Amino acid sequence: MLIWCIGRRRKMLDPTKLQDWQIAEEAEKSMKSVHRLASEWGILDNELLPYGHHLGKVDYAAVLDRLKERPDGKYIDVTAITPTPLGEGKSTTTIGLVQGLAKRNDKVSGAIRQPSGGPTFNIKGSAAGGGLSQCIPLTPFSLGLTGDIDSVTNAHNLAMVSLTARLQHEATNNDEFLAKRNLRRLNIDPTNVPMRWVIDFCAQSLRDIIIGLGGKNDGYMMRSGFAISVSSEVMAILAIFTSLRDLRERIGRIVVAYDRQGNPITTHDLEVDGAMTAWLVRASNPNLLQTTEGQPVMVHAGPFANIAVGQSSIVADRVALKLSDYHVTESGFGADIGFEKFWNIKCRVSGLRPNCAVIVATVRALKMHGGGPKVVPGKPLDVTYTQSDPALVERGLANLLAHIETVKVSGINPVVCINNFHTDSDEEIAVIKDAVENAGARAAVSRHWLLGGEGALELADAVIDACEEKNDFRLLYEDALSLRARIEKIATEVYGAAGVSYTPEARTKAEAIEADISKSNFATCMVKTHLSLSHDPTLKGRPSGWTLPIRDILVYNGAGFIVPVAGDIKLMPGTSSDPAFRRIDVDVETGKVKGLF
Amino acid sequence: MLIWCIGRRRKMLDPTKLQDWQIAEEAEKSMKSVHRLASEWGILDNELLPYGHHLGKVDYAAVLDRLKERPDGKYIDVTAITPTPLGEGKSTTTIGLVQGLAKRNDKVSGAIRQPSGGPTFNIKGSAAGGGLSQCIPLTPFSLGLTGDIDSVTNAHNLAMVSLTARLQHEATNNDEFLAKRNLRRLNIDPTNVPMRWVIDFCAQSLRDIIIGLGGKNDGYMMRSGFAISVSSEVMAILAIFTSLRDLRERIGRIVVAYDRQGNPITTHDLEVDGAMTAWLVRASNPNLLQTTEGQPVMVHAGPFANIAVGQSSIVADRVALKLSDYHVTESGFGADIGFEKFWNIKCRVSGLRPNCAVIVATVRALKMHGGGPKVVPGKPLDVTYTQSDPALVERGLANLLAHIETVKVSGINPVVCINNFHTDSDEEIAVIKDAVENAGARAAVSRHWLLGGEGALELADAVIDACEEKNDFRLLYEDALSLRARIEKIATEVYGAAGVSYTPEARTKAEAIEADISKSNFATCMVKTHLSLSHDPTLKGRPSGWTLPIRDILVYNGAGFIVPVAGDIKLMPGTSSDPAFRRIDVDVETGKVKGLF
Repeated sequence: MLIWCIGRRRKMLDPTKLQDWQIAEEAEKSMKSVHRLASEWGILDNELLPYGHHLGKVDYAAVLDRLKERPDGKYIDVTAITPTPLGEGKSTTTIGLVQGLAKRNDKVSGAIRQPSGGPTFNIKGSAAGGGLSQCIPLTPFSLGLTGDIDSVTNAHNLAMVSLTARLQHEATNNDEFLAKRNLRRLNIDPTNVPMRWVIDFCAQSLRDIIIGLGGKNDGYMMRSGFAISVSSEVMAILAIFTSLRDLRERIGRIVVAYDRQGNPITTHDLEVDGAMTAWLVRASNPNLLQTTEGQPVMVHAGPFANIAVGQSSIVADRVALKLSDYHVTESGFGADIGFEKFWNIKCRVSGLRPNCAVIVATVRALKMHGGGPKVVPGKPLDVTYTQSDPALVERGLANLLAHIETVKVSGINPVVCINNFHTDSDEEIAVIKDAVENAGARAAVSRHWLLGGEGALELADAVIDACEEKNDFRLLYEDALSLRARIEKIATEVYGAAGVSYTPEARTKAEAIEADISKSNFATCMVKTHLSLSHDPTLKGRPSGWTLPIRDILVYNGAGFIVPVAGDIKLMPGTSSDPAFRRIDVDVETGKVKGLF
Repeated sequence: MLIWCIGRRRKMLDPTKLQDWQIAEEAEKSMKSVHRLASEWGILDNELLPYGHHLGKVDYAAVLDRLKERPDGKYIDVTAITPTPLGEGKSTTTIGLVQGLAKRNDKVSGAIRQPSGGPTFNIKGSAAGGGLSQCIPLTPFSLGLTGDIDSVTNAHNLAMVSLTARLQHEATNNDEFLAKRNLRRLNIDPTNVPMRWVIDFCAQSLRDIIIGLGGKNDGYMMRSGFAISVSSEVMAILAIFTSLRDLRERIGRIVVAYDRQGNPITTHDLEVDGAMTAWLVRASNPNLLQTTEGQPVMVHAGPFANIAVGQSSIVADRVALKLSDYHVTESGFGADIGFEKFWNIKCRVSGLRPNCAVIVATVRALKMHGGGPKVVPGKPLDVTYTQSDPALVERGLANLLAHIETVKVSGINPVVCINNFHTDSDEEIAVIKDAVENAGARAAVSRHWLLGGEGALELADAVIDACEEKNDFRLLYEDALSLRARIEKIATEVYGAAGVSYTPEARTKAEAIEADISKSNFATCMVKTHLSLSHDPTLKGRPSGWTLPIRDILVYNGAGFIVPVAGDIKLMPGTSSDPAFRRIDVDVETGKVKGLF
């Protein structure tokens, strides 16, 4: 329906002339009702929780229970080469590939993350894809969707409410008073509270604060701070939980603070874990939206890509794999970050086995790796990036080859998607195709941004071929491997480091963690820049002979993540001097939100 | 359907033996789908935005436009005598009256406020009514509903993000830098920022805080604080806006801070008003739920009852009056607070004309006013309140008579609802009935808590009679009346004060406001305790010979409220030492939330 409609109107829907939101608005005129979308995909009426007419939530537990005997469809991850700071179009390719596959098969779906309100109101640009490959309806997608991030925020902050109120009541009351209320004295150390409050905006002024000023009923005076909601451990859990029971248990293990003896104090100790989970029951159901050509897209969870997996939820993928022959999911950043976490964390927890990984590459990014001038967001692109220079592209290929090798180590088949820009020359494309094929991988040029699904047929066919081919998916390391051996493996076999170094603090922590059998099955979730294969964002291409420096190791007890830190963690971005909210408004006649994209 | 079902199972559904949530759960087994509920009420498919299967939002603009020629139904406000700290059952009576009226007429509806997450997680007890007169589905009602409070929180906090980021960028950049971004220097005075951040929990530790610690990119160091979300001016606006245009304009007039010359800085000056409104487009549509007997209940907005109107939204009532023959809306606290604001603010802004006001009275509260022992929440009720003592009830009647007179001043007909407890004696009831009838008002005993609609027939019939009677509704004061003359009128004619006194600060502010013609049409929104007709919560009955002391006058420029302060304003309640969240949990097999009620 919609394909035809867009096809017929192609002249009107020219993404080189129209803005993304204009294309989305046009596509929304003929988008499917969520009832039709769901029923065509095989979801029963009672499994769909509509939110208005064009999106809804899916009762994942009901679908998984009903279809537990049905084999999964093909599972395709979309990742990328090391990107420029502008990004190389992973979400757009995810949507475009779904649209392309839909030309070959009726049961196709995608999954992407829910965007945070922080960037939406600070930096112009939606996270819903672009051009003729977008996820719609666009306004709710960009503006809180069905409230999952708000629910994460509420669940998280309730833990902080419980902690700070407990600190106050323990400070101002004796043991008898506490015993009457069946409370034991937790002796919380106010100087050792790793958890912050959260808010889903870029609120740098709340990064470091002092709370509890005033009298004895105004809390307990201490340092505190806010992080952005999507960096919350609760959000990390929403992305990787596998059942409501699992969710409940992980929430109860979150460490909020430490007592004066250094023992962890969890949400369970604070008796707030049940109430936190109550906020998450609805949020645990994935959201169902559609591509601009009418295929189902699951949008669920939006965790950070450093201290969490940076990709949409396991339950969304599970449901989609029961309903689809091909399901395309996106993992954040390059294959060193996003795919590595998809592979060794998400698939480990879910038990799902992917069939193929698409590596999105652009001529622009390869030129940067070949030595092109610095790419800075908000500044005009240097002419190097718009004039044909096959030799420069060639010099950048090492980066792409590294990511191809990474995917091959996982035992599945890589497909390189050359995400085509109109400035790319045939010679440049040929250089990439040759190199990819010489490396034993498939390559496809894709013009989904310009043409939608019609432009992604070459990519879709390559992906179908790759999925049919023999597949020997294996995790990079076994659960039994020690923390430092895992880090070594990731650093050398994925990043291409010569070795790993530790600060004394990090080494001490690593030793303690390795000695703690309660954490032996925790996932290893690396923090490293996405702008280089190394830890140094200025090193482009395929750096060699470098050592990965582990500065610190964090533990997220609820999510079950050990986080070795080899890069910056910014948990609260800042609002710039020219933020996007200045241009957002509402048409009071129609109720349409303007300027959001 | 449901009535019959509850009727047939009456023995099982005995509220003296069951908890409220058990009754709600039973009623939910046979509740109407939101599609059926809406279509039976006359809402078209495209005007309903379902949120799951049993509740939804109503596109108020579409309904009001379609039915603009249809006359309004009868408009009934439920208020109360001066309550004990336990409350006298206004929400329960609102729902019960709807159920009772439904036995006489097919087109009946109610409207109540959305509860805040603060009390829900701190104090046990839902705000959805009780016994056989409740609003369902109960879990979403108590747990964020469709996210409106979250949207208010986001809209509000975005203003604070814009303010604090602007303070930082003006402090760290020169005029040329600002001019390049088309920004003028606002010269915000960080010591004169009346707006706080909001969070919808009782978070006393965030009441008074210092923000912006750290370096020059970590905000601007200043005092700040959090209030509970339902006290936000954005929430006040959500309750009284009349169209999207009106909402947009009010949001843009909110004063966030002052510059160093003392001039107000609005959300419009910060260019954040459009983006704030974008958060509110969905939230502006009222939510549709149902009574335990299947009548429609609008739940929309939950503003504070002191610095705002403390009642559900104007748009909810407007829609309901187009669809119903009888629409029952609840106003917070006693008639001195809730009804006075309903009458002189809500009806003034909406232009709607009520037909009748129900004053909820209990034997318990009348005994308190007659001189009974102090009633303290959480402590067992003194035996005085459960043994028959008609003389004590009689001594308390003055309070009830004052509220009857207040309603009569408004020109509409009062109906006293004696909200029956099983401990009430016939003699006590007779004393009340006699006094009410002598005062020229109707009285009805109601047992809706115990029996649902069947128990509210006497009340329903009295209300129908009162609505049929001649009605001469008039505002207490004209728009042209000066601020102090308005305060004088409210104090003497509603509260029964002998006069009004002002602190020098309040007098100076009053003079400035009276001289400012831009504020001449602002509503006058009093702050006074609800526990006495006077400003002193310990004075029960009908105090006389006292003077109302105005300590301060606040201005809410967006809501358009002038707020004379004669009582405490607590914008951030505290979480107690034994909060309700300790007992809230989720059944991981069924997904049901337990302990929320």
